[in-house]
Amino acid sequence: MALIVHKYGGTSMGSTERIRNVAKRVAKWARAGHQMVVVPSAMSGETNRLLGLAKDLAPAKPGDAYSRELDMLAATGEQASSALLAIALQAEGMQSVSYAGWQVPIRTNNAYTKARIESIDDVRVRADLAHGKVVIVTGFQGVDDQGNITTLGRGGSDTSAVAVAAAMKAAECMIYTDVDGVYTTDPRVVADARRLTTVSFEEMLEMASMGSKVLQIRSVEFAGKYRVPLRVLSSFTEWDIDINEEAKSGTLITFEEDEKMEQAVVSGIAFNRDEAKISVMGVPDKPGIAAQILGAVADANIEVDMIIQNLSKDGKTDFSFTVNRGEYAKTVDMLKTKVLPSLGAEEVVGDTKICKVSIVGIGMRSHVGIASRMFRVLSEEGINIQMISTSEIKTSVVIDEKYMELAVRALHKAFDLDQPPS
Amino acid sequence: MALIVHKYGGTSMGSTERIRNVAKRVAKWARAGHQMVVVPSAMSGETNRLLGLAKDLAPAKPGDAYSRELDMLAATGEQASSALLAIALQAEGMQSVSYAGWQVPIRTNNAYTKARIESIDDVRVRADLAHGKVVIVTGFQGVDDQGNITTLGRGGSDTSAVAVAAAMKAAECMIYTDVDGVYTTDPRVVADARRLTTVSFEEMLEMASMGSKVLQIRSVEFAGKYRVPLRVLSSFTEWDIDINEEAKSGTLITFEEDEKMEQAVVSGIAFNRDEAKISVMGVPDKPGIAAQILGAVADANIEVDMIIQNLSKDGKTDFSFTVNRGEYAKTVDMLKTKVLPSLGAEEVVGDTKICKVSIVGIGMRSHVGIASRMFRVLSEEGINIQMISTSEIKTSVVIDEKYMELAVRALHKAFDLDQPPS
Repeated sequence: MALIVHKYGGTSMGSTERIRNVAKRVAKWARAGHQMVVVPSAMSGETNRLLGLAKDLAPAKPGDAYSRELDMLAATGEQASSALLAIALQAEGMQSVSYAGWQVPIRTNNAYTKARIESIDDVRVRADLAHGKVVIVTGFQGVDDQGNITTLGRGGSDTSAVAVAAAMKAAECMIYTDVDGVYTTDPRVVADARRLTTVSFEEMLEMASMGSKVLQIRSVEFAGKYRVPLRVLSSFTEWDIDINEEAKSGTLITFEEDEKMEQAVVSGIAFNRDEAKISVMGVPDKPGIAAQILGAVADANIEVDMIIQNLSKDGKTDFSFTVNRGEYAKTVDMLKTKVLPSLGAEEVVGDTKICKVSIVGIGMRSHVGIASRMFRVLSEEGINIQMISTSEIKTSVVIDEKYMELAVRALHKAFDLDQPPS
Repeated sequence: MALIVHKYGGTSMGSTERIRNVAKRVAKWARAGHQMVVVPSAMSGETNRLLGLAKDLAPAKPGDAYSRELDMLAATGEQASSALLAIALQAEGMQSVSYAGWQVPIRTNNAYTKARIESIDDVRVRADLAHGKVVIVTGFQGVDDQGNITTLGRGGSDTSAVAVAAAMKAAECMIYTDVDGVYTTDPRVVADARRLTTVSFEEMLEMASMGSKVLQIRSVEFAGKYRVPLRVLSSFTEWDIDINEEAKSGTLITFEEDEKMEQAVVSGIAFNRDEAKISVMGVPDKPGIAAQILGAVADANIEVDMIIQNLSKDGKTDFSFTVNRGEYAKTVDMLKTKVLPSLGAEEVVGDTKICKVSIVGIGMRSHVGIASRMFRVLSEEGINIQMISTSEIKTSVVIDEKYMELAVRALHKAFDLDQPPS
């Protein structure tokens, strides 16, 4: 008998029929003797419907007063789905009770629409578990110290589930979603992409931040911080699948660097086509240049991903970075009008038709030559590398967008990701 | 400058367009210098949608655990509409904040789905008003002393509004609805039915309980208990109607029996076609008969309206009462199988094709002969009276359903209700 946290996404909760299936699955786990805490998302489409109503009334009004009401509004979606799941569990003959974030309480700071969890009081939930109840805790929401409802931002239910699992020292936090695990790369791009049975926390972090949408990145950080064993698995298997089989399905995100993982040098290929590249050319090479350029970008609330500064030549250097594609025009315009004149740089150039491809693997820490192997593979395919950025367990390149599939497939094959680990 | 409570029904909150109109109307009142507290219902159809989902999952499951979740679920409708109204007010340039029942808090007992308000803490609301904010308080809901969300039952938002007005000693509680006031009778039955500018609290109570659906009866009781001036008016006038004109529109429910009201002996004609008549015939006339019959009915959770016991003849009496038409068959069956044998009565007979017509008027207290005038009017129309029941300010008769319109029109004319009060 263990304490298990299940989390179900909006698609899994998308209709009463699906909610009934979730209830049957949870009931199966409870009947097997586990103490069950379940964190459901809002029914799919509900959060968008609610925020759409708000947008109808007041398009994009900044400020805390407005954001506070957005959170009051959006939080109702999870409260409703939680109550429905409790009702479905009762219909399955289980005892069940649902709690809104403020009832647990899940305490957060007061950063409306993107609040951070500060503490979770588990007394009430533990008492219910001890009485044999299945406890439903609303995802996505909490309460600040003034008693205002807060939400954690999109995908925040993942974070809620991991935080509850951490607070209650759950044996495992199982994230049921519409994919059956974490893959070596996107199966829509590489047909023989392989599901990973385990992936390290650090790798998952790099993959999550690379646009692999399986898990919200904050939930992975949270799991890492509190060492919560996290499993991603499918909610679309039959609910009555054998429980032992289900317990081993999907992908487990681990914190132990065991022997097995050392063998796979590269675990996956991530890619991202949402970025654009911007270069400030002919910048006088003196201290404070980077701060001057990136400071202006940050002041305009534009998020920067990769940053590259080349060696200087003749006292001048080129400074490049990538931003979200949607902010490309705004960034270039801002740089030309506000930064270029005072900087004495020559010009601002850029390209939106790029993509970023990364190899991710905890084994890169202890294996040399992985990056150069990546560059050689791309070169053999005739793909020109425009930018390079590396971290301890990741090497990313920016290439022409049109070569993305080719690059991903070639790297997937070159690093033997289509083969099960030996 | 006064503290005013506005309440808007589900139809008035039925779309973002309508919510925007509510916001403009409230803003007008606030700009005129009033402190505004607004209690909105859920958007029309939302409560039914939510409860429909629950019914899909678990049809009619009794018990507190289930009812608790129904309240968690249904309460989201008002929380969402309250946040939307706050957003709409902000878009109008007002400062505004919304509070769920638990945030005020509005404390209730723990009778889920039909909770009763026990106390309202107005500290938070008063502080916001003092800062110039329009405060939105969710209708229909509260919180019990264990921190569970409760709801007040259908139409409970009226009660919420009156309770908030009472707690805050508001100058007036204005109930905006889809009718423009309280009428002498239903204008669909009598074309020249007249809107009453004032009606006494006691008359309103009788009218509310007679099936006139303008106000939830508990809200009228609450208003009476705490002497909250209550006005029913239309939310479908233009929002920019002159505020002084609006302040005098609709129907004011008063507690002062002033001269003007004394002049109208009868204020309105109420009617109800939802009842059925049941008679237990030939009951041995001895003590405890009524208790024996009505006790059995009450034990079966069947609500009784009129109760009549005729004089006995030959040691036997006939005992009649009315129940909701939907419970007629069940009641007759129960009486035949469980009560008749032990009672030694002769038979149970009944009729579903009846209606109840009542004249209501606080002037009946001080005027004699009103009831007999009613009976004479009906007799002149050839309408046979089957049952009679009287209270201090109401006389009700049960007649054949097919004469209902005829009776209502004849009484409306006979008591000069088509004429403005002299």
